[in-house]
Amino acid sequence: MTDDAIHALREHLAVVSDLGHAGMLLHWDQQTHMPARGAQARGQAGGTLERLAHERIADPVLADLLDAAEAAGEDPGLVRAVREDHAQAARVPAELVGEMAEVAAEAQGAWEAARAASDFAAFAPFLRRHVDLCRRYAACFPEAEHPYDALMQRYEPGATTASVRAAFAQLREGLVPLIAAIAAKPDPGDLTGPFPTADQRTLALEIARTMGYDDAAWRIDEAAHPFMANMGREDVRITTKEEEESTLAIGLFGVLHETGHGLYEAGIDPRWDRTTVGTGTSLGVHESQSRLWENMVGRSRAQWSRWLPRAKELFPVPLDGLEVDEVLRRINAVRPSLIRVDADEATYCLHVLLRFELEVALFEGELEVDDLPAAWNARMEEYLGVTVPSDADGVLQDIHWAHGVFGYFPTYALGTMIAAQLWEAAHVAIPDLDTRIADGDLATLREWLREHVHRHGRTRTGDEILRDVTGGGLDPVPLLRYLNDKYGALYDL
Amino acid sequence: MTDDAIHALREHLAVVSDLGHAGMLLHWDQQTHMPARGAQARGQAGGTLERLAHERIADPVLADLLDAAEAAGEDPGLVRAVREDHAQAARVPAELVGEMAEVAAEAQGAWEAARAASDFAAFAPFLRRHVDLCRRYAACFPEAEHPYDALMQRYEPGATTASVRAAFAQLREGLVPLIAAIAAKPDPGDLTGPFPTADQRTLALEIARTMGYDDAAWRIDEAAHPFMANMGREDVRITTKEEEESTLAIGLFGVLHETGHGLYEAGIDPRWDRTTVGTGTSLGVHESQSRLWENMVGRSRAQWSRWLPRAKELFPVPLDGLEVDEVLRRINAVRPSLIRVDADEATYCLHVLLRFELEVALFEGELEVDDLPAAWNARMEEYLGVTVPSDADGVLQDIHWAHGVFGYFPTYALGTMIAAQLWEAAHVAIPDLDTRIADGDLATLREWLREHVHRHGRTRTGDEILRDVTGGGLDPVPLLRYLNDKYGALYDL
Repeated sequence: MTDDAIHALREHLAVVSDLGHAGMLLHWDQQTHMPARGAQARGQAGGTLERLAHERIADPVLADLLDAAEAAGEDPGLVRAVREDHAQAARVPAELVGEMAEVAAEAQGAWEAARAASDFAAFAPFLRRHVDLCRRYAACFPEAEHPYDALMQRYEPGATTASVRAAFAQLREGLVPLIAAIAAKPDPGDLTGPFPTADQRTLALEIARTMGYDDAAWRIDEAAHPFMANMGREDVRITTKEEEESTLAIGLFGVLHETGHGLYEAGIDPRWDRTTVGTGTSLGVHESQSRLWENMVGRSRAQWSRWLPRAKELFPVPLDGLEVDEVLRRINAVRPSLIRVDADEATYCLHVLLRFELEVALFEGELEVDDLPAAWNARMEEYLGVTVPSDADGVLQDIHWAHGVFGYFPTYALGTMIAAQLWEAAHVAIPDLDTRIADGDLATLREWLREHVHRHGRTRTGDEILRDVTGGGLDPVPLLRYLNDKYGALYDL
Repeated sequence: MTDDAIHALREHLAVVSDLGHAGMLLHWDQQTHMPARGAQARGQAGGTLERLAHERIADPVLADLLDAAEAAGEDPGLVRAVREDHAQAARVPAELVGEMAEVAAEAQGAWEAARAASDFAAFAPFLRRHVDLCRRYAACFPEAEHPYDALMQRYEPGATTASVRAAFAQLREGLVPLIAAIAAKPDPGDLTGPFPTADQRTLALEIARTMGYDDAAWRIDEAAHPFMANMGREDVRITTKEEEESTLAIGLFGVLHETGHGLYEAGIDPRWDRTTVGTGTSLGVHESQSRLWENMVGRSRAQWSRWLPRAKELFPVPLDGLEVDEVLRRINAVRPSLIRVDADEATYCLHVLLRFELEVALFEGELEVDDLPAAWNARMEEYLGVTVPSDADGVLQDIHWAHGVFGYFPTYALGTMIAAQLWEAAHVAIPDLDTRIADGDLATLREWLREHVHRHGRTRTGDEILRDVTGGGLDPVPLLRYLNDKYGALYDL
């Protein structure tokens, strides 16, 4: 009887999970293999799968299944997460979900055209529709303290506008003087190629395999906008842009970033297979994994003392005569710049803060869509001292707003903070972590992350994971400490 | 009001169509890109999509939607096809469908291992389970004249055991003396390589593009067992085995075969998009398209008079000094052999007849699973004069029985007959067809096929298509006439 109740809940969730598996493959295929003219049918099929999954999560029967399964001893973390999904889905009318998806599909093409023409006005009508739809979405949650809270919930459960604002303010106060101090120092120059793309792939996959990339369960493909997609724990797919010979940014560091995302999904406890909690607990925690592996490991002295000799075998000419110190200075060069995805570790979060502030202002009614470009450009000047030459390199640079995913951007900076908190905690737990990394052992760190982060899937919140590991919640101080230590040494501050 | 009824039916069917889109992509990806360990989750997700689609087709509400849409003027061909799907699905318990899928998933691995070890006994238990399940399936249709009729319905609507048996008997009577006459003549020898695989791909795609392969809507990948999969009309994917340098069988003729399948799906009228009738009307008619393009066009004098000069540019050494006549003799060499998929046009259907007869005997209770190898070997000796050295090259050679798809094999020979009927009719309709093909014009034939076959999707049955084109139904005579004419000339009979 009690087993039956758990079984009935799991059967219900398995269908949602299987629909998600298929939806993820539709998405992956669209970005990597689909012929151009397949887009219309693909959009329709993807929309149907999403709607079927939404109907099952919103289905009133799920509330009863949850009650019965809880009484029968189902895992409390699973029950809580699914109950929240149900409450959220049940609040939002299916027509609104459908309309948001439709506008997103239309707006993507409009955004691509507007960005190509650097013509914000052409994109503004879509953005206004998205903002209206998101207002209607937020209105489904009248108890929220701030309308933006309801939007963020979709990506970062538990995050509030107030708490994020406070953390970001503290972060900004620490970052601005650090960046100013660095700006007063000589520029270290670039690590310039040629780095033949096939050799970049070789190096990246050699490192990824020591991280846990497994050829029997993973694959790598090219995509215009790199991402990770997984169909369960044992089918993990990372993507990379066509690498450029002049830099290691995409071919090496981008691959480590996506591998970090993939390790999270691959490390989830098999007991959550075919449930809706067998995935990352929030976008922030997900981003903590990608940024930890890309930057904190991937651009560290320990990592390069292990891998520079191998890199020199593959790239003898550009690395000729360079010692670890010099390589580190160049791959960690700090330079305020226009584009978020190209930003260094010190300036990256300011790009995110700017977006967060503009989004909050939009939903507080303090900023109109038409005023976004001017507000964007003013803040870029203020935070980074950068003059934006065109909307294409400014307000139109990211695809997110075309998809209407307001509340998403802050997770990039939250993830960066969480990464630093985990990185610090891992060093406490594994005192010789740097030595191990320098010895080529990346498995110890991965297993620590698996134990404390990955395996729980969504049965633990990001906040619970942080409290378990650090004894406290979200905290910008470890990130500021990490950046000050790192750049203090590299720039002799 | 009336538009509403049609709209409601179409909405119901669109979901089934979208689930099919996703299911097809899961299948394509599994055969072409999926990491090995992804198979378990993939099987589960695919099973769920099939079950959801089956539930919607079996849903009693569909009967009402059909009645209302019919009254509102919905296309009668669509109404009839969907009504038959509904009647069929509603008869079969969902548990039986699920059990058949489960055994199929288990049996695939067992078949692979049994074939590798040439050990029929290891596979027999799975086959017995499949035969039992198919008996239960057939028992859902007690009005069928023959239990095998119910099995064939799944692949060739309208075909009966009696009619197929009669056609196959007539076919066999014509084939046996033809093959004997050819055997008395000198063997023409092979067209042997090296044919570098990249050049085979070049030639195959150049031809496929003149057939209608469109790079913006098609793609080609490698797969262990070549197939065509499409997600709507504008995302058509063909596959090919890794080509062998020694022969053009796969790299050229195999690609033309799959392109033929693809042209059928790409040629369906857009008005059937996102319905369940926007696909081939039967496996036999589908196979008529692949075999027509592969053999009747692909191995014809007209085709080679156009393409031999180009082939000589790509393969100067193996084709040096060969005239069209000699090439035709070699690519059309008739040699009774063990393996169906490697068989020439003259002997191919006998491989299929043998399987049909064994399947019918199984479901008539005249043959036990354990007796299959002996019965197989005896018939191979009788029909083709070939001694089967091992079960791997005999009864275990095809994957079909591992999937439990009894009733499927006859469609290969039915398709070959239909191809010849269409080929003959096309020559009547387009008197200069051979000249056009020799001039490199494959579009005229494609458009004729589109008009008479492709565009209708499932709104016309195979029988209706044949009656429209030829004035009569299925007929083996055109195939016998085609083969006698062709080989009469090639072998100077």
